[in-house]
Amino acid sequence: MKKSLGARTMPMPAPVWVVGTYDREGRPNVMTAAWAGICCSRPPCVAVSLQKVRYTYDAIVARQAFTINVPSQAHVKAADYFGLASGRREDKLARAGLTAVASELVDAPYVAEFPVVMECRLRHTVELGSHTQFIGEVVDVKIDEELLAPDGHPDVARLGLFVYVEGYWAVGERLAEAFSIGKEMQG
Amino acid sequence: MKKSLGARTMPMPAPVWVVGTYDREGRPNVMTAAWAGICCSRPPCVAVSLQKVRYTYDAIVARQAFTINVPSQAHVKAADYFGLASGRREDKLARAGLTAVASELVDAPYVAEFPVVMECRLRHTVELGSHTQFIGEVVDVKIDEELLAPDGHPDVARLGLFVYVEGYWAVGERLAEAFSIGKEMQG
Repeated sequence: MKKSLGARTMPMPAPVWVVGTYDREGRPNVMTAAWAGICCSRPPCVAVSLQKVRYTYDAIVARQAFTINVPSQAHVKAADYFGLASGRREDKLARAGLTAVASELVDAPYVAEFPVVMECRLRHTVELGSHTQFIGEVVDVKIDEELLAPDGHPDVARLGLFVYVEGYWAVGERLAEAFSIGKEMQG
Repeated sequence: MKKSLGARTMPMPAPVWVVGTYDREGRPNVMTAAWAGICCSRPPCVAVSLQKVRYTYDAIVARQAFTINVPSQAHVKAADYFGLASGRREDKLARAGLTAVASELVDAPYVAEFPVVMECRLRHTVELGSHTQFIGEVVDVKIDEELLAPDGHPDVARLGLFVYVEGYWAVGERLAEAFSIGKEMQG
């Protein structure tokens, strides 16, 4: 029997992505966003939604660029902090002991210590209500070299990913191959 | 040392959401999408991106509504199959032995056997290239009553969620509370 919970958001699950930007003065800042995801394959695009009060909002508008930094489980505390504090008042990266590196391709910094980075150029801005959705074209993905498997794909088990579902949860065991296990149901 | 993988999509991780629709003739259909996520809190909205060739694309345009059905690990095979086959040629729900139930609030069916459902009314359509992003307002969330914890929140450990990161991976152990563990870093 299903119970109705009303009109609400329900992360099932949501990613934990850290958005990297330079502000108008060129200071690097990061904030954590969970209202986010991939939204197109060609061109490769990601969407991330922010409230206008966020310091990162002004930075994306000013620089027309951002990075998506994927934290590993070693950085849960920093990722949570990046969602709580504002870059208007604190140098969040310094406090977390993390390093901003200038992207080669877009006007935004990335977090050196996080395993995966997507460098994004702003393509679309969609006003939705409490949140503005920024859609960025991914011009490069960077990954820690030692986290690539011999076949050139990310070694997912060693990435230490986690997700947001009322709290942070580890990505655990591999269940099945995609675009494969379902074939036996096909007509 | 980071290695550049070029301009590409990289799910880190992506949700595995099954989109439910009625076609123009009123037949229920489902397809699996991973290019998706929450995109606004007020009104609560989700975004899901589809290619125009998908049967579900026409159905969303025709009915201006869809559901997001969240499978549990018991349904990995069905979720994979729903992404491989087309509702133009196969009754996917029947083949998977699953049941379509008419939503009370929107013109779309949901999957009875899946633990969580979001009923969505189409609000925005964003053309991005290979994919069209449909943004739906969530008018109700429904959850299997026995999967609610005594505090009224979903009992995440019992939901059996999984994500897509080059294959399907279980959501595993709880790491930390959100909006909490990071406070000790705050100035």
